[in-house]
Amino acid sequence: MSFNIEQSEKKRVVIVGGGFGGLRLANRLRNSPYQVVLIDKNNYHQFPPLIYQIASAGIEPSAIAFPFRKIFKKCHDFYYRMAEARAIFPDQKILQTSIGKIKYDYLVFAAGTTSNFFGNKHIEEEAIPMKTLAEAMGLRNALLGNLERSVTCATEQERRELLNIVIVGGGATGIEIAGAIAEMRRYVLPKDYPELKGEELHIYLIEACDRLLSGMSQQSSQKAKEFLEDMGVKVMLNKMVTDYDDHKVVLADGTSIPTRSFIWVSGVRANTIGNMPETSLGRGGRIKVDAYNRVEGMDDVFCIGDQCIMTADPSYPKGHPQLAQVAIQQGGLLADNLRSMARGGRLRPFTYRNLGSMATVGRNRAVAEFASFKTQGWMAWLLWLVVHLRSILGVRNRIAVFFSWIWDYVSYGHSIRLIVYARKAKEVADRERREATTHWGEDLIKAGQGK
Amino acid sequence: MSFNIEQSEKKRVVIVGGGFGGLRLANRLRNSPYQVVLIDKNNYHQFPPLIYQIASAGIEPSAIAFPFRKIFKKCHDFYYRMAEARAIFPDQKILQTSIGKIKYDYLVFAAGTTSNFFGNKHIEEEAIPMKTLAEAMGLRNALLGNLERSVTCATEQERRELLNIVIVGGGATGIEIAGAIAEMRRYVLPKDYPELKGEELHIYLIEACDRLLSGMSQQSSQKAKEFLEDMGVKVMLNKMVTDYDDHKVVLADGTSIPTRSFIWVSGVRANTIGNMPETSLGRGGRIKVDAYNRVEGMDDVFCIGDQCIMTADPSYPKGHPQLAQVAIQQGGLLADNLRSMARGGRLRPFTYRNLGSMATVGRNRAVAEFASFKTQGWMAWLLWLVVHLRSILGVRNRIAVFFSWIWDYVSYGHSIRLIVYARKAKEVADRERREATTHWGEDLIKAGQGK
Repeated sequence: MSFNIEQSEKKRVVIVGGGFGGLRLANRLRNSPYQVVLIDKNNYHQFPPLIYQIASAGIEPSAIAFPFRKIFKKCHDFYYRMAEARAIFPDQKILQTSIGKIKYDYLVFAAGTTSNFFGNKHIEEEAIPMKTLAEAMGLRNALLGNLERSVTCATEQERRELLNIVIVGGGATGIEIAGAIAEMRRYVLPKDYPELKGEELHIYLIEACDRLLSGMSQQSSQKAKEFLEDMGVKVMLNKMVTDYDDHKVVLADGTSIPTRSFIWVSGVRANTIGNMPETSLGRGGRIKVDAYNRVEGMDDVFCIGDQCIMTADPSYPKGHPQLAQVAIQQGGLLADNLRSMARGGRLRPFTYRNLGSMATVGRNRAVAEFASFKTQGWMAWLLWLVVHLRSILGVRNRIAVFFSWIWDYVSYGHSIRLIVYARKAKEVADRERREATTHWGEDLIKAGQGK
Repeated sequence: MSFNIEQSEKKRVVIVGGGFGGLRLANRLRNSPYQVVLIDKNNYHQFPPLIYQIASAGIEPSAIAFPFRKIFKKCHDFYYRMAEARAIFPDQKILQTSIGKIKYDYLVFAAGTTSNFFGNKHIEEEAIPMKTLAEAMGLRNALLGNLERSVTCATEQERRELLNIVIVGGGATGIEIAGAIAEMRRYVLPKDYPELKGEELHIYLIEACDRLLSGMSQQSSQKAKEFLEDMGVKVMLNKMVTDYDDHKVVLADGTSIPTRSFIWVSGVRANTIGNMPETSLGRGGRIKVDAYNRVEGMDDVFCIGDQCIMTADPSYPKGHPQLAQVAIQQGGLLADNLRSMARGGRLRPFTYRNLGSMATVGRNRAVAEFASFKTQGWMAWLLWLVVHLRSILGVRNRIAVFFSWIWDYVSYGHSIRLIVYARKAKEVADRERREATTHWGEDLIKAGQGK
């Protein structure tokens, strides 16, 4: 056993992924009749709604990331392990991971989603995604590096490619990063890059549907578009991106846009897990669950959040939207249900309570919708700030984000304009290579034999 | 010309490197009769004295890094370019860089030093250096990753390797990182890693000389050693590291220490520049300069700071110590001398004014020496904090560092315990590869022909 976990008389709940759903579940299982094992490939919980601000150099990675060991430092019979889930062996109740296998009594998948490139290898290789902290830091480095490069590059053609930024995907993430880059162009560029004229930098936001923010109302979509266009973003609706080739984004209508900053926030698919039968998977690779988040056709295996699809909720016959709120509510309910099971009690089915949704475009510009009212502009923006600040884990992080926001608001700046990649030690690189290869093979076979 | 710089009637000063020396020089040449071009491979100035706190997860990279474009945003006839210097062609007054070549009227090397592995390829490949921000972030990732791994690794042997931390080099950097890790072991480990017993983690500090901090007094050396031993660091003096093999640090006396955290802060050598004649180089690859920091045997070429060696200063016949203060004072004087040259005035030779030196081991534990007095303990520690806080560039950064320090002091924590590597976009990786190869060849030849 590679997990180094003390034997316990309690039943063991293994949670895969410490995002919104997994974290809520783990938190609600403190002091429960269960031993909890949380695995995540990162050693920290990240806060996706603000990841775009890392990319635009507004806040520090550490401000929206919280180490799991710190969150759970006072928990009894709780274990965090840095690992990736690989495959499930439901007959033996074993989960195979990158650090070995682990027995579970109850297993909960809460591993979320990853960028969906819809099978296009070109795009997958060349596009810059923005789902994780590491990707957002990479995007920041790429954006700033391209600006530097544009000042000194050899040809007019390359210069144009470097100064076109193309964002594909008109959801909340897309409009937020487009807005943030537009603000950088307006407030930071003239000061930092006198060699560039602001107008030379073009920002394109491409969406395949006929409107932005398709999860929100027509009114919000329209307003978000106005805000963006007002800030000089070229919003292109009803446009499908089919390829990226020779530094050009190719559209279905045959036109193309030259760019070396090709940002892909166009869709997600559920993270996969080996040995999961095809029949258990729904649209976008999401794992089908019943009203209690139980994976169909498996005993004692659950899935919550973006990674699952539940069609049992009468108000959402096609499944819930993949939003933080759904994951959090499912995580909370599953904790209650697990506790209830330990008492031999009854399970409660899930119904989603929509608390509203919002998206921000920039200073004083946001859209927000709640059951009872809609609002746009500075009021929505202020609401957005308050809601997100409140949701950030930890006092220190909240202060750090608040301080960054105030500073940037007053100075019209994005302060953290560093191009920096952490140097990977050879020992670490070697280990990662090893884990990626050996563990798959050997341990899987043993697990398959029921060891 | 790849530099995209407007023609100016002023003479052009090209500065290679924006560390302490180059930055002081560039700052003092604001509104001077010169056009200034600063090149640096990073887009930010970094503050080396606090780099070890990045490695120990105490502060954020952005807190001790300051983008050059922000520093110089209001300067007239000033240009920053992100590039690496490659070779000098003094006859044509051309500097070859990674982004092309540039003509200079005056050229100043201020490119500092890099880790010295004394020709041992094994050590160079496997050791973790800590000279730059990127390296310190890599070290933090490696240290935290090794802790995670030690909890779940397969063999007792690997566990021991993962829990031994070996630091080679007993200068200020070595004792600072040793102290910081020892504090992490004492205050953070018991809370974060209940699976580990603090005593299992061993910290070795190895020094080839017979005392630590050989640049300071016997008294300071002795006190620093006491502080470290008091915190449980195993200080090994008179020990020479000869190799690293099979996850073992090999010593000259035949013994070895198993470890996968092999930190190398044992010495530096000057950064090299192509075409610089061997005869111009002194000990440690440092470029020989006269009392006015002029490179011997070249016209209009200067070198300042760690990268140069000056034997003309009567008090330092073997050259100055490689310290920030020397670089800063040389940068300031060279600016004055360049201004004087423009007026046809006389040059002033350099004499080093030693402002004192200090090193910190941990909470309330430091050593400091000045012309008039020496002090150790909390008084030295407080002095250390004040001096370093004052030296950090920019109000925002000063607030950020101050806040981190207060927070960590009160909470006994090191808050930024994230393992995260920025994801490199393919476009960026491709470009770096291209720059590393093509520019060397083609442009060099052109430059050699005087084009």
